[in-house]
Amino acid sequence: MAEIETFIWDKEHECMGEDERRELVGKRLVDCVRRTYANAPYYKKKLDQAGITPDDIKGLDDIEKLPFTDKLDFRDNYPFGTLAVPRDQLVRFHASSGTTGKMKVVGYTANDVELWSEALCRSFAMGGMKKGDLVHIAYGYGLFTGGLGPHYACQKYGSVAIPVSGGNTARQIQILTEWKPEVICCTPTYMLHIIDTIEKNEMDKSQLNLRCGFFGAEAWTHEMKDQIESRIGLQAFDIYGLTEIVGPGVGCSCQHCQDQIHIQSDFFWPEIVDPETGKPLPEGELGELVFSSVMKEGVPMIRYNTHDLTRIHYGKCACGRTTPRIDKITGRADDMLIIRGVNVFPTQIETAVMRYKEVLPHYMIYVDRVNNLDVISVKIELNPNQFPDTMKGLEKLTKSIEGDIASITGIHAKVQLVEPRSLPRSEGKMVRVIDSRFKK
Amino acid sequence: MAEIETFIWDKEHECMGEDERRELVGKRLVDCVRRTYANAPYYKKKLDQAGITPDDIKGLDDIEKLPFTDKLDFRDNYPFGTLAVPRDQLVRFHASSGTTGKMKVVGYTANDVELWSEALCRSFAMGGMKKGDLVHIAYGYGLFTGGLGPHYACQKYGSVAIPVSGGNTARQIQILTEWKPEVICCTPTYMLHIIDTIEKNEMDKSQLNLRCGFFGAEAWTHEMKDQIESRIGLQAFDIYGLTEIVGPGVGCSCQHCQDQIHIQSDFFWPEIVDPETGKPLPEGELGELVFSSVMKEGVPMIRYNTHDLTRIHYGKCACGRTTPRIDKITGRADDMLIIRGVNVFPTQIETAVMRYKEVLPHYMIYVDRVNNLDVISVKIELNPNQFPDTMKGLEKLTKSIEGDIASITGIHAKVQLVEPRSLPRSEGKMVRVIDSRFKK
Repeated sequence: MAEIETFIWDKEHECMGEDERRELVGKRLVDCVRRTYANAPYYKKKLDQAGITPDDIKGLDDIEKLPFTDKLDFRDNYPFGTLAVPRDQLVRFHASSGTTGKMKVVGYTANDVELWSEALCRSFAMGGMKKGDLVHIAYGYGLFTGGLGPHYACQKYGSVAIPVSGGNTARQIQILTEWKPEVICCTPTYMLHIIDTIEKNEMDKSQLNLRCGFFGAEAWTHEMKDQIESRIGLQAFDIYGLTEIVGPGVGCSCQHCQDQIHIQSDFFWPEIVDPETGKPLPEGELGELVFSSVMKEGVPMIRYNTHDLTRIHYGKCACGRTTPRIDKITGRADDMLIIRGVNVFPTQIETAVMRYKEVLPHYMIYVDRVNNLDVISVKIELNPNQFPDTMKGLEKLTKSIEGDIASITGIHAKVQLVEPRSLPRSEGKMVRVIDSRFKK
Repeated sequence: MAEIETFIWDKEHECMGEDERRELVGKRLVDCVRRTYANAPYYKKKLDQAGITPDDIKGLDDIEKLPFTDKLDFRDNYPFGTLAVPRDQLVRFHASSGTTGKMKVVGYTANDVELWSEALCRSFAMGGMKKGDLVHIAYGYGLFTGGLGPHYACQKYGSVAIPVSGGNTARQIQILTEWKPEVICCTPTYMLHIIDTIEKNEMDKSQLNLRCGFFGAEAWTHEMKDQIESRIGLQAFDIYGLTEIVGPGVGCSCQHCQDQIHIQSDFFWPEIVDPETGKPLPEGELGELVFSSVMKEGVPMIRYNTHDLTRIHYGKCACGRTTPRIDKITGRADDMLIIRGVNVFPTQIETAVMRYKEVLPHYMIYVDRVNNLDVISVKIELNPNQFPDTMKGLEKLTKSIEGDIASITGIHAKVQLVEPRSLPRSEGKMVRVIDSRFKK
C-alpha cells in the first residue's frame, strides 16, 4: 500500500518534550483533582476514604497517591452521580451499555465536545484525511460515541460528514460507490462485511474512491488490517477510545507505528499498572491501561482503569510525534477467557485464523464446560475460492489451524470449518464469543 | 392539560409587521436567486429556460415569476448537482429516501446548520422547553434529519440532548423513567408505541417527568394529539419540516394555535398554490405548500413544491407571534389515495377511528382492486379494556365506525376489528397504507 500524505494537527502538543508534557499534564491534573473533589461527592468520598486531600497532589509524580476509579463508580452512582458540573452546564449525554444492566452515563459540556473533536482532528491528520474530504460515518449514531464523535470533529477539521450510521448495507454501498467518499469510519468487522457484500455481488471496486479508514470500537489484529487494506485498497488506521474517557480519538495509529496507538496524553494521561497490585509498570511491560482525563469537565475520570491490556512506549515515533504509544489492544482483562487456567484472548485466535487464505476472517468461538472440563471450539468459514476440495485436504487444514491456535494460546481448540456466509455477520460491534459455561 | 410556560425566542423576527417581513424576505430572495443562479448550473438552466434573469427579481412581489422546483430536481441532479457552493464548504450531508430509489441529497454549510438550530430554538420556546431541560431525542439519527436537527439545536438553546435515536423501546422507557427527561422528540406513532408498552407492562407513570413533546415527520391528527396528551401527561406540539428545506423546525405549533403551525417565514417563505394551475391561492384556501429557503447556502431551494396540502393564515396569533400559520398537514398530494375518483387521506380515517374508546389508535389501511373496482378496508385493534363483549356489540361498533369514515371521506370502507397488538408497530415513520392496486 502506497504511503498517503499526513500532517501533524497540533505540533506544539503532539511533539513536545517529555518533561514539558509531564509538567503540563501535572498542572492539569492538580486542577482536575481539585475541581472533581469539590463538585463530585462520590469522588470526595473516595479521596477522603483514601486519606488524600487535593493539596497532596502537586504534580504528575503524585498521581500514584490517587485511588483508581472504574466502571463500578458509574454503576454505584447511576445515572448522574459522577457529574462534576451542574446538569444544566451539559450539552449532551452519551452512555455505554454496562454488562451489569446499568448504563455508564457520561455528560459532556460544550468544552468537552470541543476537546473530543480536537483529539479526533489529531487522529484524522494521522490517517491522511484532507480538508474537504467526504467522510462516510457508518458507526452507529446515538448514545454510542462512535457516530457523533467523528461527526462533530469533521466540521472542526474542515471535512464533510455523511452521517450514514449503522445498518442497511445496500445503502452503505450505494453511497460508497455513488457519492464516492474518500474516508470511512466504522468497526473493522463491519468494513469486512461491506467488502464481502461488494465481492459477493461482483461489484466494480474501481467505483470506490476510499483512501483511508478509521476503524475501532473492537479489538482487531494486524492480520485483519492487512485483509481490509488489500481487499478494498485503502489505508486502515486503528482509532481507540472509550465513552468513559471521551469516545473514539483518545488515541490513533499513525502510518509509521501501525500496530501502536499514539495517545493524546495531554488530554488523557495513560499509565500501565499491574492488574494484581495496581502498581505502575515500566515501559514495555504488559498491564492494565489507566487514564486520567485531566481536561474533562462533565465527568472527569481520574485514574480510570479501562481493564484493556497493553504495553506503553515512550520516545519519538518515526512520524515525529512524541506522544506515548500503546500497543494495539489485544484484549480486555474482562474479555479474557480463562480456559483451564490459561488466559486466552479472542484476538489470539484471530491471529491464527488470519494466516490462512483457505478461510475467511469470519469465525465464532464457543466455550462450554463438559464433565467439569472447559472445552473451546472455533467455527471458521471456508473461503469459497480457495478451500481444498478433498476431505484429506480439509482435515489437514483443520489440524494446521488447530496447531497454530495451540502454539499461540497454549490450549487446544477444536476447529470446525463451515460453509461460507453461514456465520452471523455484524452491523456494529461483533460478538465473537459464546461462552455457555456459566449460564446453566 | 394545564398551560405550560412559553416565551418567544426571537421577538424581532417572530413578531415583526407583515410589510416589514415581506421587505426583509424580498431582499433575502433577491440575494438567494442571484447566488443560486451563479453557482448551481441546474438552476441557471431552469431560469434561462423560463426566460428570467436574476435582475427580474427585485422583491417578494416578483416571486411568482420564478419557476417551481421539486423532487425531480434532486433526482435529475443526483447526487451533488443541486449544490450552490463548492463541496468543500459543506460540513454535512443529509438525505431523504426518494420513492424513485434515488435519495434527495442535501448539503449543509456551517451557516445552514446554525440557521436550522435557530429555527428549532424558536420551536422549542413555543413548546415551553426550559434551559437545562433534558431532551430525550428518539428520532432516528443519521441521514434522516429528525435526530441530528434537534440534537444540534439543544446546545444553542441551553438544554441537554440525550441522543437515544430510534429503536430498543425497553431502553427508551428505562431512560424516560430513570433519567427523567422533561422533553421528548419523536414521531407521534412511536410515542404511542412507547405509551402502549408502558401501559402493557403496568409501569408506574408517575416515574415519568415529561412536560412537553415535539412530534413530527408524519401527518397526524388532533385526535392523536389528544390521546398522547391524556395518556402520558405532557403537552404535544406539532413540529414540521422536510429535509429539502432544512429538516424539522421549518415550523411548529404553539400553545394557542394548536392545530396550526407557525412557519419561520423569514428563513423559509411559504406560499400556497393551486395544484392544477400553480397560481398562488388566497389566505384560507386549500392548496400545495411551496417554500423558498431564502437564507440557505448549501442547497437553497426556490419555490420548492412540497406537495403537502394545507391552508395559510396571516395576522397575529394569540401567542403574540405574527409569523404566517399553516393548518396541520392533513396529507401530501402524493400520499392521497384516489378511491373510485374520491380523494381520501389516511388522516381522515384516523379522525374517524380516534372517536372510539372501544378501539386503539392502531390501524392499517388496505387498498386493492377487485373486478376493476377499488376496495378499501381498515383493520383496527380493539381496546382490551373497553371493547364490547357480544357479537352484536362488535357488529354495531363496526357499522358505526364505517358510518363515520363514510361521512368524513365520502367512501365506504370495510372495517375489521382485530385483536389488540396484532398490527405491526412503528419504531420510526409508520406505514399506514398498503396499496396493492398497482403492484400486479
